[in-house]
Amino acid sequence: MRSFMYHQPTRLFFGRGQIRHLGKEAAKYGSRVLLVYGGGSIKRNMIFESVARELEKYGLEYKELGGISPNPLLQRVVEGVRLAREQKTDLVLAVGGGSVIDTAKAIAAGVYATGDLWNMFLGREPITRALPVGTVLTLAATGSEANEHAVITHEGAKKKCAIHSEMIIPKFSVMDPEYTFTVSPRQTAAGVSDIMAHLFEQYFSPDAEAVITDYLTEAVLRVCVEMGPRAFRDGRDMEARANLMWASTVALNGLMGLGKKTDWSVHKLSHELSARYGMIHGETFSILYPAWLRYVADNDKGHRMARLEKLLFQAPDGSPEGFAEKLENFYRSLKLPIRLSEREVGPEQFEQMASSIIDLYGTIGAFRILDYNDIVHIYRLSL
Amino acid sequence: MRSFMYHQPTRLFFGRGQIRHLGKEAAKYGSRVLLVYGGGSIKRNMIFESVARELEKYGLEYKELGGISPNPLLQRVVEGVRLAREQKTDLVLAVGGGSVIDTAKAIAAGVYATGDLWNMFLGREPITRALPVGTVLTLAATGSEANEHAVITHEGAKKKCAIHSEMIIPKFSVMDPEYTFTVSPRQTAAGVSDIMAHLFEQYFSPDAEAVITDYLTEAVLRVCVEMGPRAFRDGRDMEARANLMWASTVALNGLMGLGKKTDWSVHKLSHELSARYGMIHGETFSILYPAWLRYVADNDKGHRMARLEKLLFQAPDGSPEGFAEKLENFYRSLKLPIRLSEREVGPEQFEQMASSIIDLYGTIGAFRILDYNDIVHIYRLSL
Repeated sequence: MRSFMYHQPTRLFFGRGQIRHLGKEAAKYGSRVLLVYGGGSIKRNMIFESVARELEKYGLEYKELGGISPNPLLQRVVEGVRLAREQKTDLVLAVGGGSVIDTAKAIAAGVYATGDLWNMFLGREPITRALPVGTVLTLAATGSEANEHAVITHEGAKKKCAIHSEMIIPKFSVMDPEYTFTVSPRQTAAGVSDIMAHLFEQYFSPDAEAVITDYLTEAVLRVCVEMGPRAFRDGRDMEARANLMWASTVALNGLMGLGKKTDWSVHKLSHELSARYGMIHGETFSILYPAWLRYVADNDKGHRMARLEKLLFQAPDGSPEGFAEKLENFYRSLKLPIRLSEREVGPEQFEQMASSIIDLYGTIGAFRILDYNDIVHIYRLSL
Repeated sequence: MRSFMYHQPTRLFFGRGQIRHLGKEAAKYGSRVLLVYGGGSIKRNMIFESVARELEKYGLEYKELGGISPNPLLQRVVEGVRLAREQKTDLVLAVGGGSVIDTAKAIAAGVYATGDLWNMFLGREPITRALPVGTVLTLAATGSEANEHAVITHEGAKKKCAIHSEMIIPKFSVMDPEYTFTVSPRQTAAGVSDIMAHLFEQYFSPDAEAVITDYLTEAVLRVCVEMGPRAFRDGRDMEARANLMWASTVALNGLMGLGKKTDWSVHKLSHELSARYGMIHGETFSILYPAWLRYVADNDKGHRMARLEKLLFQAPDGSPEGFAEKLENFYRSLKLPIRLSEREVGPEQFEQMASSIIDLYGTIGAFRILDYNDIVHIYRLSL
């Protein structure tokens, strides 16, 4: 096993009615809250009202930054930073899913940035401080509620980039599975696909020694495959919603990558599709993973694909192609796209997207290292 | 799933050579360290020297409290508290296994106790403050390196009791699997048995909804069954030592009990045996678990025993008796005792032990609630 440092400092309040902890937790950091949220569904389903009530109970004043979109934009981060400086914000509180939380994290760090905020995302300005962040989660998908990552899209540059810093790990998160009851089947499916992508990125490793991490990852993948279709069919299935919500957190709070090299190449291919075509994050993975699995199958010395086919889909024997096929069928059962053509994306920008990735990162991946030609090839397989 | 609050604030430095982080981490808390350790093996295998060198590098001064025994005694905690008050200790640093770490935690809390230290263990004095605790782990077993528990024995009263408080969660732990290479086969086996007991106590639950927690627990149990015999045979098997060390942490850092009721009755039966006969903690479980499993088999509505028999021991079909038998064989393969008679313990004190448990806790357990008669019966089955 490779060396690592691990901790999970976010205080996670999980379960029905846990919003009751919000006021007390938030008040630990001061009295001025910047409340970040998305398209307004939280105002329709009363979550906003519960949040406001809890904040008022503890005498906290809040300013609002609403309308954060999926694939959240840098421009809203800039706006949030201005608001936070004006308000002298003590706590940035995200009420929403990954896009909202990532925006809140970027604002929290951005308040202390000295120059162009995008420099943080290009690695040109280190993050040494950030305002405290808290979250009230309304979507099981990104794991952003308990990790150090935030992904933001630069609309002008058509780039989607991430920051990673201990400084932006949320101090607390309220995780009430009932808050996800009204998530649509399409968003639910995309969330499941996102969780599984996080697990695949870490599972497909050239290392074999971190057996415990592999087994833990397989356990969470099983939960996705069993509970995903249930939540897709019945949004109010509490058991499915709760297990998926906790799966989203442990899938990307560090635990599933401990002691091994992780891959993360498919995320880079995904970000190009979202930045250029506005594709939903989770829907890029149901398209890209089957293609990636087939392309890198020869590197699967540890027979991980066969293991997953047996474990997740009860195949008597497994194979890379068998796993890719069964995974496609699983995605299809959730009405997720499995080809770019289903989203009207053609091959026109494949070369540009590959160049853009290579410019940013050089080669990518670990299970198999991918260069420009590999990337173009995987995009082609996704058509 | 039941509601919970979870966090894992301990900074865990895992891997070969991670001792290099010790000085910097320790220095965060001040300059005076109370160094707690066990029987002196760390002086023979050079771990003490590495620790001292790291502390000196950062100008930290330390006082020593050595000779902490397995089933650690209150008397040594009292001595440690006196030393810590005298030294004006800034950090209690445990270098050892669970006994040493638990002693350090009890000292850290005891420094602020107003009366008899044992009152903390009887729940009569709440723990509201504690000195910071750090650890350098030398044995994979108790998980004490990353949790809020400490178990101490009152020699006079023949009682072994626990404290549980967020205040005593270690701030950091150094976990170098190489530090466990010299652990004897007998201690290694006892450690594996202890880790598995922690998992069983949480796995055998009357609740079925926390599917993700169940799957994660099964994953760690598999690691124990696969890696335990390897470390038992070859103490220098790095892969086995590393996987077991991480298994010990995740088995009892809270994760494996999330969202469900947990049992913990067998630990109470174990503590009586250790307090009265000085039995090694892990060796009580290889005796008690087969007996407990058989006694409570009728309560296994979720077929958890059969599932484990299939998963851990590749049985085509599983049953409670089959699992109990195969588990006995597994314990035997590690040369662990499976009957009290192998440790010259007879039935003389069964009634007293049962009374003592009932006096302390009333009825115990959750998978099945046990009263006085049940407890006596399980002890008899262990003969």
